[in-house]
Amino acid sequence: MNISTPPAPPKTEALARRYGQDAIPDVGPWNAHLDLLLSHRSIRGYRPDPVPEGTVETLIAAAQSAASSSNLQLWSAVVVRAPETKAELASIAGGQKHIEQCPLYMVWIADLSRNQRLGDQENVTLEAPPHFETFLVAAVDAALAAQNAVVAAESLGLSTVYIGAMRNDPMRVRELLGLPDQTMAVFGLCVGYPAADVENEVKPRLPQPAVVFSETYGNPEEPALRAAYDRLMTDFSERQGMGAVSWSKRVLERLGPLKSMNGRERLAATIRAMGFPLK
Amino acid sequence: MNISTPPAPPKTEALARRYGQDAIPDVGPWNAHLDLLLSHRSIRGYRPDPVPEGTVETLIAAAQSAASSSNLQLWSAVVVRAPETKAELASIAGGQKHIEQCPLYMVWIADLSRNQRLGDQENVTLEAPPHFETFLVAAVDAALAAQNAVVAAESLGLSTVYIGAMRNDPMRVRELLGLPDQTMAVFGLCVGYPAADVENEVKPRLPQPAVVFSETYGNPEEPALRAAYDRLMTDFSERQGMGAVSWSKRVLERLGPLKSMNGRERLAATIRAMGFPLK
Repeated sequence: MNISTPPAPPKTEALARRYGQDAIPDVGPWNAHLDLLLSHRSIRGYRPDPVPEGTVETLIAAAQSAASSSNLQLWSAVVVRAPETKAELASIAGGQKHIEQCPLYMVWIADLSRNQRLGDQENVTLEAPPHFETFLVAAVDAALAAQNAVVAAESLGLSTVYIGAMRNDPMRVRELLGLPDQTMAVFGLCVGYPAADVENEVKPRLPQPAVVFSETYGNPEEPALRAAYDRLMTDFSERQGMGAVSWSKRVLERLGPLKSMNGRERLAATIRAMGFPLK
Repeated sequence: MNISTPPAPPKTEALARRYGQDAIPDVGPWNAHLDLLLSHRSIRGYRPDPVPEGTVETLIAAAQSAASSSNLQLWSAVVVRAPETKAELASIAGGQKHIEQCPLYMVWIADLSRNQRLGDQENVTLEAPPHFETFLVAAVDAALAAQNAVVAAESLGLSTVYIGAMRNDPMRVRELLGLPDQTMAVFGLCVGYPAADVENEVKPRLPQPAVVFSETYGNPEEPALRAAYDRLMTDFSERQGMGAVSWSKRVLERLGPLKSMNGRERLAATIRAMGFPLK
């Protein structure tokens, strides 16, 4: 008789991949949508195959279905397929070749300009746009929208990766895409089918008790939780062929020296020069 | 013989609700995940029924599955159930009663403090956190995470609404939730079961050609697209019992006078006082 262990239910498997076996949270009801969300991984290598007709329209319909603060709809997207533009954008991003590879590159834009054009047309002075708050609303609205597009893409068997490095030189992105004043490329998004050889293991995250709190902030166990996560991520990093490096070490490398910001330390000044006073 | 019109396919119905019959985009393949995303509506009235055991853990697992810039994980969430705290938060938000009604209120926090504590423990000076860029990454990461939580909640039959009005007085939110320096409540999120009497028609959005562009920004048809959307939204507004008011008029009311910012015009100064120099 062949006695085998029954397979773990999808919920347990999905959570073990995300948190490791020792930090599985006690979640409630489960469904296929949660399976999709939990299975996300960022993909940094693409096949050249085009995406199906209508994909952009589908992703934008999902994006526009996300909440928008006061329905102001303070974001836009520019879809880039032209190889020469993608090559320039890849160069801005420090040579991230997946920007050139992916059939569809979407640039997500905090956009106060559309509503400014409305104010101009109606001869109404808009007092809110120069304020930091209004820029923040636009950036958050763009992020909510893009995340819905990511979920939609993954539901269609496509993969994605966000490209924060558009902010290495947003003024050059603006020139390339013909962006007007009061717009800013917050991030890019590669969309396409993953290349066969790319790593696509789900990346573990901090244990839940380190990031979610009841009633008031904080957990005295934070150092122990971080130490456990460091062990998990050291193993993950080694499996990915990136050396046995802990999460803590990577965070300190990324946030420690100014040079790791790749020019983004000048972002506030650049955004001001793009028509956002950030008052 | 009973001759009846066959029902529209789910895709066409979902798109007609979101864009109106005259602006249905030409989308590609469809599935149940897209149906879920497209059916989103913000709900501003809740039954007192509690959410199932494990709901918070499920929403946070979805949230942590969203991409995180350089895996820095610069966000946290505080879950509020205490009626007195929810009452205070509702008051900060100008008396939004759904904050008191919903069984689960989640405050989403841009959080540089966790990684700062790591730097302090390891005696490493972190040069990136004082910069505007790093605050922006935290706010965007919080938004990506929260949007996954919203999708997860809706997949479980729960409803949500984002509460930007935490930013009316983020310093008071910080006091109520015991937030440390280098954290800021970006927005709240009500989670619960909708009350029977709340409006829950899907809100139409701008036609796609007004917000998504190919290769370079802009569409010369923008004024006509806006006019068509104004007609759609005037009808929507009237059906909702909010008067026959166009989208353009609402935008100009919201972005025009400074007083409509409800104190958020001071946000940059407040965030600086919370330990984000925004350099």
